[in-house]
Amino acid sequence: MVRAEDLLVRRLGPCEFPSPIGKTGSVKHGVGVDDRLLYDDRLSSLGEQVDRDGPLPSFEVAGAHEKIYFDPAKTRAGIVTCGGLCPGLNDVIRGLVMVLHHRYGVRAIEGYRYGYEGLNPAFGHEPMVLTPDLVESIHKDGGTILGSSRGQQPDDVMVKFLKERGVNILFTIGGDGTQRGALDLSTEARKQGMDLAVVGLPKTIDNDVRYVEQSFGFQTAFTRAHYAIETAHNEARASRKGVGLVKLMGRHSGFIAAYATLASNDVNYCLIPEVDVSLEGEGGFVEHLDKRLERRGHAVVVVAEGFGQSYVEAEGTDKSGNKKLGDIGPWMKDLISSKIPDASIKYVDPSYLIRGLPATPHDSVLCFRLAAYAVHAAMAGLTDMLVGKWHGRFLNVPIPAVSRQRQCVDPAGELWFSVLEATGQPRAWGAPQPV
Amino acid sequence: MVRAEDLLVRRLGPCEFPSPIGKTGSVKHGVGVDDRLLYDDRLSSLGEQVDRDGPLPSFEVAGAHEKIYFDPAKTRAGIVTCGGLCPGLNDVIRGLVMVLHHRYGVRAIEGYRYGYEGLNPAFGHEPMVLTPDLVESIHKDGGTILGSSRGQQPDDVMVKFLKERGVNILFTIGGDGTQRGALDLSTEARKQGMDLAVVGLPKTIDNDVRYVEQSFGFQTAFTRAHYAIETAHNEARASRKGVGLVKLMGRHSGFIAAYATLASNDVNYCLIPEVDVSLEGEGGFVEHLDKRLERRGHAVVVVAEGFGQSYVEAEGTDKSGNKKLGDIGPWMKDLISSKIPDASIKYVDPSYLIRGLPATPHDSVLCFRLAAYAVHAAMAGLTDMLVGKWHGRFLNVPIPAVSRQRQCVDPAGELWFSVLEATGQPRAWGAPQPV
Amino acid sequence: MVRAEDLLVRRLGPCEFPSPIGKTGSVKHGVGVDDRLLYDDRLSSLGEQVDRDGPLPSFEVAGAHEKIYFDPAKTRAGIVTCGGLCPGLNDVIRGLVMVLHHRYGVRAIEGYRYGYEGLNPAFGHEPMVLTPDLVESIHKDGGTILGSSRGQQPDDVMVKFLKERGVNILFTIGGDGTQRGALDLSTEARKQGMDLAVVGLPKTIDNDVRYVEQSFGFQTAFTRAHYAIETAHNEARASRKGVGLVKLMGRHSGFIAAYATLASNDVNYCLIPEVDVSLEGEGGFVEHLDKRLERRGHAVVVVAEGFGQSYVEAEGTDKSGNKKLGDIGPWMKDLISSKIPDASIKYVDPSYLIRGLPATPHDSVLCFRLAAYAVHAAMAGLTDMLVGKWHGRFLNVPIPAVSRQRQCVDPAGELWFSVLEATGQPRAWGAPQPV
Amino acid sequence: MVRAEDLLVRRLGPCEFPSPIGKTGSVKHGVGVDDRLLYDDRLSSLGEQVDRDGPLPSFEVAGAHEKIYFDPAKTRAGIVTCGGLCPGLNDVIRGLVMVLHHRYGVRAIEGYRYGYEGLNPAFGHEPMVLTPDLVESIHKDGGTILGSSRGQQPDDVMVKFLKERGVNILFTIGGDGTQRGALDLSTEARKQGMDLAVVGLPKTIDNDVRYVEQSFGFQTAFTRAHYAIETAHNEARASRKGVGLVKLMGRHSGFIAAYATLASNDVNYCLIPEVDVSLEGEGGFVEHLDKRLERRGHAVVVVAEGFGQSYVEAEGTDKSGNKKLGDIGPWMKDLISSKIPDASIKYVDPSYLIRGLPATPHDSVLCFRLAAYAVHAAMAGLTDMLVGKWHGRFLNVPIPAVSRQRQCVDPAGELWFSVLEATGQPRAWGAPQPV
Repeated sequence: MVRAEDLLVRRLGPCEFPSPIGKTGSVKHGVGVDDRLLYDDRLSSLGEQVDRDGPLPSFEVAGAHEKIYFDPAKTRAGIVTCGGLCPGLNDVIRGLVMVLHHRYGVRAIEGYRYGYEGLNPAFGHEPMVLTPDLVESIHKDGGTILGSSRGQQPDDVMVKFLKERGVNILFTIGGDGTQRGALDLSTEARKQGMDLAVVGLPKTIDNDVRYVEQSFGFQTAFTRAHYAIETAHNEARASRKGVGLVKLMGRHSGFIAAYATLASNDVNYCLIPEVDVSLEGEGGFVEHLDKRLERRGHAVVVVAEGFGQSYVEAEGTDKSGNKKLGDIGPWMKDLISSKIPDASIKYVDPSYLIRGLPATPHDSVLCFRLAAYAVHAAMAGLTDMLVGKWHGRFLNVPIPAVSRQRQCVDPAGELWFSVLEATGQPRAWGAPQPV
Repeated sequence: MVRAEDLLVRRLGPCEFPSPIGKTGSVKHGVGVDDRLLYDDRLSSLGEQVDRDGPLPSFEVAGAHEKIYFDPAKTRAGIVTCGGLCPGLNDVIRGLVMVLHHRYGVRAIEGYRYGYEGLNPAFGHEPMVLTPDLVESIHKDGGTILGSSRGQQPDDVMVKFLKERGVNILFTIGGDGTQRGALDLSTEARKQGMDLAVVGLPKTIDNDVRYVEQSFGFQTAFTRAHYAIETAHNEARASRKGVGLVKLMGRHSGFIAAYATLASNDVNYCLIPEVDVSLEGEGGFVEHLDKRLERRGHAVVVVAEGFGQSYVEAEGTDKSGNKKLGDIGPWMKDLISSKIPDASIKYVDPSYLIRGLPATPHDSVLCFRLAAYAVHAAMAGLTDMLVGKWHGRFLNVPIPAVSRQRQCVDPAGELWFSVLEATGQPRAWGAPQPV
Repeated sequence: MVRAEDLLVRRLGPCEFPSPIGKTGSVKHGVGVDDRLLYDDRLSSLGEQVDRDGPLPSFEVAGAHEKIYFDPAKTRAGIVTCGGLCPGLNDVIRGLVMVLHHRYGVRAIEGYRYGYEGLNPAFGHEPMVLTPDLVESIHKDGGTILGSSRGQQPDDVMVKFLKERGVNILFTIGGDGTQRGALDLSTEARKQGMDLAVVGLPKTIDNDVRYVEQSFGFQTAFTRAHYAIETAHNEARASRKGVGLVKLMGRHSGFIAAYATLASNDVNYCLIPEVDVSLEGEGGFVEHLDKRLERRGHAVVVVAEGFGQSYVEAEGTDKSGNKKLGDIGPWMKDLISSKIPDASIKYVDPSYLIRGLPATPHDSVLCFRLAAYAVHAAMAGLTDMLVGKWHGRFLNVPIPAVSRQRQCVDPAGELWFSVLEATGQPRAWGAPQPV
Repeated sequence: MVRAEDLLVRRLGPCEFPSPIGKTGSVKHGVGVDDRLLYDDRLSSLGEQVDRDGPLPSFEVAGAHEKIYFDPAKTRAGIVTCGGLCPGLNDVIRGLVMVLHHRYGVRAIEGYRYGYEGLNPAFGHEPMVLTPDLVESIHKDGGTILGSSRGQQPDDVMVKFLKERGVNILFTIGGDGTQRGALDLSTEARKQGMDLAVVGLPKTIDNDVRYVEQSFGFQTAFTRAHYAIETAHNEARASRKGVGLVKLMGRHSGFIAAYATLASNDVNYCLIPEVDVSLEGEGGFVEHLDKRLERRGHAVVVVAEGFGQSYVEAEGTDKSGNKKLGDIGPWMKDLISSKIPDASIKYVDPSYLIRGLPATPHDSVLCFRLAAYAVHAAMAGLTDMLVGKWHGRFLNVPIPAVSRQRQCVDPAGELWFSVLEATGQPRAWGAPQPV
């Protein structure tokens, strides 16, 4: 249940400085920055909604404001990138610097090295001074010029560090864990009486952050995954009973597997964490695959890394606190080769190859726009929020609302239905998995 | 003013056959096929809306239905592609055939050659028999295997042709004009007592069809346009007072220019049909460019083909009935070289290069899904509609609602605001143009 | 020691049919088909060469002849692809069919399925009839439309099969083992009094076939490998003490590793089978890497799969008779992480991803030309040869001359010297390995 | 007639400093730096050659020497890029800096802005200080970080400028004209008693420099041209009597057109400056095209910009002294549309799009190696030369030998024969053109 109050963004205080750029326009259906957007826009739900007490849940629209909270001439902004790489990180850094500098006139911008480590003086990482000249061409490289790391640092240490440097705004580019960390840091800052705006840019190659319809880098990732599938398809077709088996990223959410499957037209089985599948036994995956190999001579199987974790063991967590996953790829390879001994299996694991290169032009556009909205929000004194996208529009979303739940492929929704249509795999396989 | 009744899709009759695939799921927020979606989802507009008489304007959600109108075993479907090329045409054809054949079991599918010409026996184009084997790999080629042409053919001739062949469903892949033509054809069919479902797939490289948030092929197009801009940027930087001038498609709507500008990070001026710009005189484009060349040594200018038509003459219309455009590219080149004689101008016109190649993986996904939704609609007996996208969801939209107005870049909206942020060109230039 | 007689190509008999296309021109330095090319063109070696008895070793130039051996109207040609995939296989098949059909007028062309299995009726693979229409667009797909397999089939069985079908020419697309098999098959055919021309097209993604300066698909392969390295570089830079470790193909010859290293500009260590390297101990790889990580913060290591086989165990051979290799990639990863515990290692193994996609335009050109030369040779009744390239020109090379020795990176030659210049890794490491 | 003495490279004096890197190895067939390579390696020509008086014409092999002329610690090197853009310019600059700095220890490296203008103080362009850090990632951008311009500056002015700055080595990256200019500059320097090594890196997107088998950037260029052709092919096929007409670079030499044609498999007519073609009249191009359109429905025509200059007028020369060309593209379009009125012509002119982007990995390899060889030559005191490639090996070639004649497609050679095989256009068309 989403409540209206869950979607309200916190503000540091009233805006008193005139913005040098003015506010984002709002004619007709280009929803304006002063407006709010319904959380639920189904006609069917309207009746129940308007009847009940209290306001309808709705989102604040992202955009530039007429008045801003910080005086640009005196503002110092910091940027940090955390967690694993994602295409577009440099685009986002570049966008933040460009809009801060050229549009608002902010001159003091700095980048912290290697994730939150860069905010802990114990590591001795000197912050980078970020200027338009420095960032001009960085988006042509993958990775992040700031470096990254996993995990949190002590909040009091980081707040002290920021306070001493006179930082007013902190942009946190990272996933779920990073944003929860940002929230803690912000809470600590408030406790210490520091006037700090913390604005997140959600980074998730798995596309699993809620209220972020399609995260930056995701299109780049599934575009690259698509070529891995095409390769596996060509390998499979060239062998008698050839099976192309492709493992793709997707710890809890199978979006990369689903979209790459839809893009490739050549996938026969798409296995994701959200949908349970009987692998063996009558009517199960292996039997179905075997029949297809007899009938058609080859097959392509895509499996997301988070699928079938009940079969593969793994212990412990990584530094981000994520549970380590067992490696389902080789396990599936062994399963198929043991059950269908004359199959010729070509296993492909593109791993980092889908995330280490520069963003596609589409993702570059998305990164620039996210960065601009993040700057607008921060300059207006909004905090503890990230820039999301819902029903096609950019929004300011409170971090707590986001981190309550992961975004997953809905096994009863239209995306998965499309995957079933594209692959022809049985709809009956497995009930939706609890997420 | 959009009225609720404008958004209702016409149906041939009640659905009585059970669908072999069942209906698209609808749990929680994955809006289901039985649902409708608000046209206007701003919280601010809700008050006024619910108070007034009559239902709120809303769209029918696209998807598969539990019962269908046509008996698959007896259904004959035809496909036609019209107008200029667009990346993804073969993906759409492939998707239609695959879903008709594999999901619904329709076995009689045919493609008409060279647009509506293929429905006029006078041209002697034999229809192609379309099978899964034939279309399996066509999406790896750009263009359309069916061929295309501009313009209409006599409705009575086309209806007679379809009637004699026993066609029940016609998929029309084309732009504005094509869909208006499809409507006329459908009207004629009804008049002749023919039970024909006409379902459109909106094809517009300019992204200018209303209620179609992002048309298929558009991402591919601006991705390619991006590389043209990057080239021009490199050329401009290599010369003293170097100007890279790029003309891009966009007859009435500057979406390609806008997105390619946002993707490229290197554009200083983006000129589109929707926004008037004083080219000469104080504070105008030429003066601004000249100053930039003095200050920074080079500049990149992107101009959409429909910009500045008051300066360039052209007469007549093409076969699609579109007004011919004067060629603004060379005119701009001459303008700049006459006013800034020592500028070194490199003019790039990628023309067909942005549309003649295969679709990007993202556009392939979009094409497949559009095709699947079109098949679901047609099998359910919906007609005189096309598959649109609004606020992130796929919809069934009546053709008349679409063809009433073109989709344009809103000069007061957030997209154009982003362009201004990315280029730094003056916001004050020109009032929004009437569209 | 290369002897002149080793480089003479066998002929089935005198050419009596006039060629429908005439011979390849030979003006000035475009060496003509009637000419021969010196094996050794160093000025220094000329003295010794011309003084000694007998002719100088030289190659026959590839090209079309004025008179041909086979009557096109009565010729039946077969094509087989063997061994692992390589970019460009479909280009080669396409080229053979196009030149046979359009230039010589050969109408009977067939393709055998799944390598030499397709010539053994026991497998029941029906040959494919190959026509220009069928092959027109196959080069846009990776893989091979004929399928492939490893290993040989009984020579007498295959010759009987070809004889019964009336085949005059067999094109064998494959590596070392395939061509040795082709030679055996040809010998058997002669024994059975069959007038069969066997012409090879050397396929080796490792570029390890002698007298083939750069094999088709090789550029495509190292182009893709380059992107894997770029990814690893971005991953490495984003971590403190980040190490990007990339395993690339190269069983006995490190060409892919060497060229990808030169293309990438970002590699610090390139380890290939031909050059031994002390991994541990003073002045060894690990110590050097450790110092670099201290000094520069990150490093990129490229290792060819055939490197360091003394460290990793593997037993047995694959179906092609190749010795199985131990997996050096994970072994290197473990070595580094055990010796430099705080290094953050990102391991990338692109495996099939460098070979399963279509050829680059350069490789497409190469494939077409190789195919045309192979057809010219076969039509002229040349046999037991393959089309090679030496000192920049296409040649007809006897198979025995080729299979005597593998082509390797010369650790004392200019290519490896370039790699040392590009990486800066110590020249002193390891003596050249015996090959 | 090439004479032996024409191929001898000038040296500033004896080499006395030991090289920090030693010489390029020379075992077996990796031809060593002390060796020379035969100009003519045909067996047939050997008899005549060895019989005649005097030495055989041969080339000096490129490579690193054991002793060098310049003391690295005291050496100052300058780099200039001239003429039009070419993919790989930044790769070459990067390679020069990296090898000078890391391998030889040269610390004073500077780049001159905007071609030879940068050596004329009157323009006021400050030289750039070039360091490994500065050039590390420049190859990911197209263009040249130094800028470029056409034309020469006064030799005495440039020599004075270099002398005052204490420059010992000048690397000139440019085409024919640039290298002739370099020779004049070197002559002037000698006259003024300046000890200047001038080493050229041949830059020609048309691949028309003699003794340079394949110039850097050429593969990148025809790769991009290939996509333009593919686009035109898709456009052509989609229309009844569709003609895809593509104009490509190639002022005097049709290499880009020839290779792009071979890569594309879809070209029916390839028109280059070196081969005259009767356009009209019986058996001419138009008649042939018309018949093909009747028979096959579409056609693709590639025309190099230098083709058919007798039909199109142009006057004057550009700043490089090149004769201006008339625009054959639109002229051809008009010709076809006037003679075949119902043809649907799609004209594509990729212009700068084939040269303004970064180099392909293959060209990056080539650029790095050329740069390294240029540094080796310069450090050894070689001058008035450029790095060439002949029969597959890198060579030091005297500039005068190069500039005597342009490299052209030989209409009687194997490359053009391949084009005829690929297109099927009549071999009889036109006699070879005088070049």
